[in-house]
Amino acid sequence: MGLINHVFNADSLKKLYPSNLGIGHTRYSTSGISELQNCQPFVVETLHGKIAVAHNGELTNAAQLRKKLMRHGVGLSTSSDSELITQLLAFTPPLENDDTADWVARIKNLMKETPTSYSLLIMHKDIIYAVRDPYGNRPLCIGRLIPVGDMNGKGKDNTETEGWVVSSESCSFLSIGAEYYREVLPGEIVKISRHDVQTLDVIRRPAGDPSAFCIFEYVYFARPDSIFEGQMVYSVRRRCGQQLAIEAPVEADLVSTVPESATPAALGYAQKCGLPYVEVLCKNRYVGRTFIQPNMRLRQLGVAKKFGVLSDNFKGKRVVIIDDSIVRGNTISPIIKLLRESGAKEVHIRVASPPIRFPCYMGINIPTKEELIANRPEFHDLANYIGADSVVYLSVEGLVSSVQESIKARQDNNPKTHKSFIGKLGHCTACLTGDYPVELEW
Amino acid sequence: MGLINHVFNADSLKKLYPSNLGIGHTRYSTSGISELQNCQPFVVETLHGKIAVAHNGELTNAAQLRKKLMRHGVGLSTSSDSELITQLLAFTPPLENDDTADWVARIKNLMKETPTSYSLLIMHKDIIYAVRDPYGNRPLCIGRLIPVGDMNGKGKDNTETEGWVVSSESCSFLSIGAEYYREVLPGEIVKISRHDVQTLDVIRRPAGDPSAFCIFEYVYFARPDSIFEGQMVYSVRRRCGQQLAIEAPVEADLVSTVPESATPAALGYAQKCGLPYVEVLCKNRYVGRTFIQPNMRLRQLGVAKKFGVLSDNFKGKRVVIIDDSIVRGNTISPIIKLLRESGAKEVHIRVASPPIRFPCYMGINIPTKEELIANRPEFHDLANYIGADSVVYLSVEGLVSSVQESIKARQDNNPKTHKSFIGKLGHCTACLTGDYPVELEW
Amino acid sequence: MGLINHVFNADSLKKLYPSNLGIGHTRYSTSGISELQNCQPFVVETLHGKIAVAHNGELTNAAQLRKKLMRHGVGLSTSSDSELITQLLAFTPPLENDDTADWVARIKNLMKETPTSYSLLIMHKDIIYAVRDPYGNRPLCIGRLIPVGDMNGKGKDNTETEGWVVSSESCSFLSIGAEYYREVLPGEIVKISRHDVQTLDVIRRPAGDPSAFCIFEYVYFARPDSIFEGQMVYSVRRRCGQQLAIEAPVEADLVSTVPESATPAALGYAQKCGLPYVEVLCKNRYVGRTFIQPNMRLRQLGVAKKFGVLSDNFKGKRVVIIDDSIVRGNTISPIIKLLRESGAKEVHIRVASPPIRFPCYMGINIPTKEELIANRPEFHDLANYIGADSVVYLSVEGLVSSVQESIKARQDNNPKTHKSFIGKLGHCTACLTGDYPVELEW
Amino acid sequence: MGLINHVFNADSLKKLYPSNLGIGHTRYSTSGISELQNCQPFVVETLHGKIAVAHNGELTNAAQLRKKLMRHGVGLSTSSDSELITQLLAFTPPLENDDTADWVARIKNLMKETPTSYSLLIMHKDIIYAVRDPYGNRPLCIGRLIPVGDMNGKGKDNTETEGWVVSSESCSFLSIGAEYYREVLPGEIVKISRHDVQTLDVIRRPAGDPSAFCIFEYVYFARPDSIFEGQMVYSVRRRCGQQLAIEAPVEADLVSTVPESATPAALGYAQKCGLPYVEVLCKNRYVGRTFIQPNMRLRQLGVAKKFGVLSDNFKGKRVVIIDDSIVRGNTISPIIKLLRESGAKEVHIRVASPPIRFPCYMGINIPTKEELIANRPEFHDLANYIGADSVVYLSVEGLVSSVQESIKARQDNNPKTHKSFIGKLGHCTACLTGDYPVELEW
Repeated sequence: MGLINHVFNADSLKKLYPSNLGIGHTRYSTSGISELQNCQPFVVETLHGKIAVAHNGELTNAAQLRKKLMRHGVGLSTSSDSELITQLLAFTPPLENDDTADWVARIKNLMKETPTSYSLLIMHKDIIYAVRDPYGNRPLCIGRLIPVGDMNGKGKDNTETEGWVVSSESCSFLSIGAEYYREVLPGEIVKISRHDVQTLDVIRRPAGDPSAFCIFEYVYFARPDSIFEGQMVYSVRRRCGQQLAIEAPVEADLVSTVPESATPAALGYAQKCGLPYVEVLCKNRYVGRTFIQPNMRLRQLGVAKKFGVLSDNFKGKRVVIIDDSIVRGNTISPIIKLLRESGAKEVHIRVASPPIRFPCYMGINIPTKEELIANRPEFHDLANYIGADSVVYLSVEGLVSSVQESIKARQDNNPKTHKSFIGKLGHCTACLTGDYPVELEW
Repeated sequence: MGLINHVFNADSLKKLYPSNLGIGHTRYSTSGISELQNCQPFVVETLHGKIAVAHNGELTNAAQLRKKLMRHGVGLSTSSDSELITQLLAFTPPLENDDTADWVARIKNLMKETPTSYSLLIMHKDIIYAVRDPYGNRPLCIGRLIPVGDMNGKGKDNTETEGWVVSSESCSFLSIGAEYYREVLPGEIVKISRHDVQTLDVIRRPAGDPSAFCIFEYVYFARPDSIFEGQMVYSVRRRCGQQLAIEAPVEADLVSTVPESATPAALGYAQKCGLPYVEVLCKNRYVGRTFIQPNMRLRQLGVAKKFGVLSDNFKGKRVVIIDDSIVRGNTISPIIKLLRESGAKEVHIRVASPPIRFPCYMGINIPTKEELIANRPEFHDLANYIGADSVVYLSVEGLVSSVQESIKARQDNNPKTHKSFIGKLGHCTACLTGDYPVELEW
Repeated sequence: MGLINHVFNADSLKKLYPSNLGIGHTRYSTSGISELQNCQPFVVETLHGKIAVAHNGELTNAAQLRKKLMRHGVGLSTSSDSELITQLLAFTPPLENDDTADWVARIKNLMKETPTSYSLLIMHKDIIYAVRDPYGNRPLCIGRLIPVGDMNGKGKDNTETEGWVVSSESCSFLSIGAEYYREVLPGEIVKISRHDVQTLDVIRRPAGDPSAFCIFEYVYFARPDSIFEGQMVYSVRRRCGQQLAIEAPVEADLVSTVPESATPAALGYAQKCGLPYVEVLCKNRYVGRTFIQPNMRLRQLGVAKKFGVLSDNFKGKRVVIIDDSIVRGNTISPIIKLLRESGAKEVHIRVASPPIRFPCYMGINIPTKEELIANRPEFHDLANYIGADSVVYLSVEGLVSSVQESIKARQDNNPKTHKSFIGKLGHCTACLTGDYPVELEW
Repeated sequence: MGLINHVFNADSLKKLYPSNLGIGHTRYSTSGISELQNCQPFVVETLHGKIAVAHNGELTNAAQLRKKLMRHGVGLSTSSDSELITQLLAFTPPLENDDTADWVARIKNLMKETPTSYSLLIMHKDIIYAVRDPYGNRPLCIGRLIPVGDMNGKGKDNTETEGWVVSSESCSFLSIGAEYYREVLPGEIVKISRHDVQTLDVIRRPAGDPSAFCIFEYVYFARPDSIFEGQMVYSVRRRCGQQLAIEAPVEADLVSTVPESATPAALGYAQKCGLPYVEVLCKNRYVGRTFIQPNMRLRQLGVAKKFGVLSDNFKGKRVVIIDDSIVRGNTISPIIKLLRESGAKEVHIRVASPPIRFPCYMGINIPTKEELIANRPEFHDLANYIGADSVVYLSVEGLVSSVQESIKARQDNNPKTHKSFIGKLGHCTACLTGDYPVELEW
């Protein structure tokens, strides 16, 4: 429980050093003690030794699977899918005469019982299994430690620096001296041992179902230097900005960003429009962490606490601000107010993703339907509500094509060897369209 | 995890206030994060709702029971008996068609599967079951909240102050405004609801087996004001001191104690011998908590850090020191040295319990056989080893008779109505004699 | 700021290890951040190097001295007497041509400016000066590290273990391997260097003024194994109990104590009366540290939270309870109630010190006059107010004679060599009698 | 001591709320307990009440002033200039007959005794004096709380929201609902009371000395949205980039930045050269805060831990990287290596400030002369040392003109009314040139 750098401090890390493999998962803690038992990995002792499971995602049929286990007399000590998955692996029949634990058979059995969404790391003795659900909804990729050549007279292949790492996002590899190797494919079961990465099986989706990688990883969650489906997130975001410039151009003097996540889209928009890219805000790194609560005065003033304003850069100008998404609408209003009070002549908002309208049941924390600005009456006159001269969102089609364009190009160029996307290409746009990749059971 | 007053601070208690029942268990933490999952109570969700289990003791056949559950496909997430007990309760067959959870039947089933040692609190919805194993190895007793009469015009029975409490030791009742009601009997299943305490069943021991309450609770663990088997611990300890005076008198000028646990025995010894009781040591409350580690100098000096010395009280005198037990022998040596250097003419040690020689498998943390002074060569010349003029332990018979004397008297006086000790009276003296109450399975 | 064992933890102690001398003072913190600057020692840089001052006591003419310094342009950064003393030492004229810092002359000058109360440690370079005010109001004594003989082939005098320690209470010496050497006399300036303890001067009181060591150190503050004025505190307390038995006997069955500070007096009282000494309460070590606040119920029940009750020891008996002092009267009431409800036939209270009636201006934290039970109307029928069958305090004369008896005997036996009490023997009884040792200036 | 949001938490702020004025200063703590006493403000009691002083800067003649005070018998409890300033204010003669504290006279006297560098806030009763040294070396500016109109029926002038704030940097005003009012001028003494800001006096520099505001505030320390001398820091930095493009152009495909401080200069450079501005790195927010220390492997790999790499943006391209300064040279090397390994064809470094060569004695923490890359042999072949294809710094003249250009333009336009820079305009470039604004005394 707690921040990573508090939990994995010098002392606790020292205890881990003699080890040579391990798994874990960083999750946002919501609140308090009750979450403690949901820490990952979940570890149980079975007849065949201990297994540990780290899980990213949310099982869409968790309720049915919990009941099934309880009906067999298994008490569940947490509300987490990690325990559920672990006990399902332990429980897998036939239990009689089960002298050898065929973990691969157990994993396949698990994958047949639940369609999505899960990226899993399962550790047993000296093996780690990396598994992605057949829809590929959550990301998972493999990296390889970069060998240090000529170290102490040893060659490039000296085993001390050999090893594999698995992560949701490839951006984590660089800072530990590893390099991107490849994605785990939708439905793939990969066995990782000291020297080897080996595909054991690939479980297919029902015929006709497209893959369903979460499109919001591209729009919002992932770091721009991460690679999904063969493309850098930064490039997708810039294409979204370019597409937005095509869909919703505006006569203005300059294009800017709400730092920092919308910057790639803003640069793409500016380039496509031929307008200069100019910074209008700088991050105020201090305010967000203080206990100085906004009092009545500050609320009345509508202060944009998180930002400083570079007024000399836009006084008397018509400004286009690119934002990556507008979820509740309460962040952009004070920014617009601030820009106007600091001298902006016009403020136009362009959003590099479509409006969010629906809940996610696959592991992403989205505000309730009522809180989403796109489901509220104010949405019909949004520019007025947030104080902008105009506001336009990217279309769903525009987003999907920005994401799929280069994947398709590569598939077309190289239909045989490009194995990354088995079956029909698709993306999960459920939060934007309400089209969920699998039927939801309750 | 942590100290009670850190865990149950003002904030965390506020969250508990609306509740009207709860269970828990305070255990010595040994070290670090790995123990976290052994915190009690253990809670699982079952088909019939959540159950929570708090457990004091250690199952002598835990290994077999764990294997049995794992053979049925239940993964065990901790090494604790609490989880084991909880999953055994959840698992109890017949599982098919088990539409109603007959918790009492499940508890009886559990008690048939494991003979000792356990005192349990099991919570389900608005009921708490209090259970003691058939040998009565671990203590468990019930208290009643003292009604506050004429409070705001309400009578003595006003329900707001009505309630029951259950504890290992009765000494805990007074400070929360409760009074001792009665012990849970060996093998008894008690159902506690808002208004009522009701015996549901009493599971018997195998014919001929005597009861086996841990005799070391009397000697060392319990607080002197606690009541077990109808008698105050303080009185038993004083009788041990008197018995020791009969078994091992000594010509001396005064009797004293190693504060504070041996004081009742010292007063009993002094009274029986007709010698004055005098204080020779006072507790040094500070030293034990500082980080000032004993350096080479202090170790060479053999400083008795925990105590101050009241030298004027015994200069030139022959001193008898009563100690409650000598486990490793490294505490008493510096005390004897200190008394001699401060002017004691002779120092005789009398120990108000027999030497510990055997491990405990029923939940008490005892040093390894090799560390126990009674199993070491130095034991043959112990007085010389610790620097005393003489040292004598209480006999096992002397201890047992000091403990059982008044229980037997009460049973003789009132054989019918005195229900507290069903079957043959006995005590577990395994750590002193090696006679374990049940056969140990490995 | 904080508890000693938090401040002086393993890390901070490591930084101190290379040092070979140091001073400090442990004070009760009252509350919050504002006290930080009052931490001791107070250190300033002067023309002649740094000096550090640790101070126990309270200057009776602090206000005048502060004004004097400020009139010379010295700003005072705290409200502490330590800074005041330090700046007075720095300021001492003549300042012109003051090429050598004559610290002894500065200390003497300081002592002429303020009569009491102060025990001081002043550190400058490799010298520590230990100073006690002429009235000897606060305690101060010197200990010597016990040499470890034949260590690594070195003799008893090997310098590595040589050294001196100074403390308010001699009880602190034992646990660090030191032994009591002697008291610092009233008015004495002692210079302590590596190998030597040397009296530099003794500043006398005005002719006729008796010494004025705080009598409450004997009654309440000091640990029983400490030595003041040549006698053990424990012995004085036992004599108070004996004297109380002479002044206020009672027909009863047993004598007991409010553990633990009143035990010496209780044993003295019991012995003088010929009544048995019996324990009726045991300390409840847990309750005081929890956050479980006494609610309305517990207050109504008047629970004596700090104690367990050993009811079998006094059921049906007439009990005399010896307490060391009754300040506010709110501690003893619930104890009496508890004893009665647990079966005591009569409860008589005997207090081994006189009632406190007056404030202390010499460094002791005493409740306000209004809070002191002896100044309240209830005092006239105190037995009734606290629920006792009778209550009697020790007389002031009885206390003074218990304290001075053996000092006078020693002085009579050895008028020449016994230097400890220069001039007329007296004790400060201001909180009991209102007679302050010096006239108070405001 | 500690982080602002730990020290000023909800509890400690609550205690401050009833107050209506206050001062403080945030300083980098170096290490440990010894710094505690250097916390600001420094507060002393004087004959005329308490004064509190917060100080930014470093007195160039501190050693002489400390000796002077100590010669008058004032002991100094810290090594801080804040205490020194405070005691100098308290001490100011004539002390005899000084019935009224003329604080303004005392401040003027202080300013005559020490030329630089200090920006001060001095609080006494309900007045705050804001003071800047005659050279204006450290910044200081005044803001005004923005009145909230029509609040609860009150007008724009309702006093509840009226007030003044003073800060080193104007960027702090926005987030508390204040707006920039004006700078405190070099040598100015400003009196701030509830309703009014009033210039009491302006102390002049010696004739001919130019003003000496720290040029590194523009280059590095200040936030880009801060305003000094009438211009936004961001604008100065962009001009430095433009000037750098004139001084050191390069044939390349794109211009980029080391995020984020060099971004304004990079945008200026790109615009002036006509090259596209492209992002090549993204900040890795996590690594810097973890306890995962760089081991031998990572050091051998030379991993640029703080950054992620946007390789698709520059593969096969010639890249110009703008950095704001190169101090030690150990940050830029791994970045260049990373860019090359990720596909950059050429990497040219352009530094938007001149090399640092000299220590600062006016309050800025600069590495020792030996650590500064510009003083080391490697500097002669710096491009090779850091692995760049070329490296060029901005000239001192280029920096000074970028800073002074628009100030001079304004002065020329409006010589009478523009009062901000009294006397001759200059800037402190001591760390770049060794020309200190005042002669240093030791």
